[in-house]
Amino acid sequence: MAINQGVRPGGRSARVQASVHNAVNQLLEERERGELTVPLIAARAGVTPSTIYRRWGDLNELLGDVALQRIRPDSGPTDTGSLAGDLLAWGIQYMEETSSVPGRAAVLDLLAAGGGCSGRCLEIATAQFGAILERAVSRGEPVPSNDRVVDRLMAPLVYRILFSGEPLEVAYVEALVEVTLEGIGG
Amino acid sequence: MAINQGVRPGGRSARVQASVHNAVNQLLEERERGELTVPLIAARAGVTPSTIYRRWGDLNELLGDVALQRIRPDSGPTDTGSLAGDLLAWGIQYMEETSSVPGRAAVLDLLAAGGGCSGRCLEIATAQFGAILERAVSRGEPVPSNDRVVDRLMAPLVYRILFSGEPLEVAYVEALVEVTLEGIGG
Repeated sequence: MAINQGVRPGGRSARVQASVHNAVNQLLEERERGELTVPLIAARAGVTPSTIYRRWGDLNELLGDVALQRIRPDSGPTDTGSLAGDLLAWGIQYMEETSSVPGRAAVLDLLAAGGGCSGRCLEIATAQFGAILERAVSRGEPVPSNDRVVDRLMAPLVYRILFSGEPLEVAYVEALVEVTLEGIGG
Repeated sequence: MAINQGVRPGGRSARVQASVHNAVNQLLEERERGELTVPLIAARAGVTPSTIYRRWGDLNELLGDVALQRIRPDSGPTDTGSLAGDLLAWGIQYMEETSSVPGRAAVLDLLAAGGGCSGRCLEIATAQFGAILERAVSRGEPVPSNDRVVDRLMAPLVYRILFSGEPLEVAYVEALVEVTLEGIGG
């Protein structure tokens, strides 16, 4: 999945990638994930199966790559005017997206790909938190470390979404935000 | 996977289950997970494929059931003489097991099964923490809630093992234990 190095954006290679990604997304809407195969995706994308194997290695890597695009946020985190508000808004949106059927499927696809996300999932999250924390600093608010936001807000959310089997409530996100900001002064 | 109700332990049904579980575990040592099929497992276990479909529904459910047995701890948590020591010993062992190749595969199998663990993973963990906390109470130590151990120790460990792609260190587990016990008095 690190095979994009040296690729000219917008060139033939980028068009192949877009076409294959679109094919996967279309097929995921029409069928069970377990029914997807490389030949099926290739046929829909108008490329040969060997193009897919050469570029992504195998089906799991391709599905992981598509899932990574899907979990990339469309926009920066909402500005609610305060750090606590921004973290809460992020947490509620993340909880809703990740506990949805396609959100859960994206997480599983990411984990099933060879490197199991290899830090790229964490990078996407910490970039979002970085933007939130920078905004708080510019407002003059005291801020926790990015790592603390990961450990105290993101990790419990992900853990409970994936493993607990119980629907989460907004009050739970609020409690996590409180623990994240506990004792940081201000 | 809740099909064991009314089953006489040690009866024919239990023998079928043991035989199928053994077949899966053997095959997982010999092959890639993606190569396993219900007919292959049935042949190794000496049962018909329809026995497996009737009992487990599909391959993902069966692999999830086997993974659930695999993650069940063989023994109670180590008694180190203190709550902080017990949580640290638990965390280090959990980190080692879960970041191993078979440990990671077990987590993925659990998540891929229909209900995605449906709370059973969380039950296994909270039972372990329950035993550790009960022991601490009997020593007269102040204790955090079980939920707090999940959110502050277990969740960050699982999140970083699954998503960060970086090896974790004992010092990280120590820091999590400290945060778990922060401000609980004593």
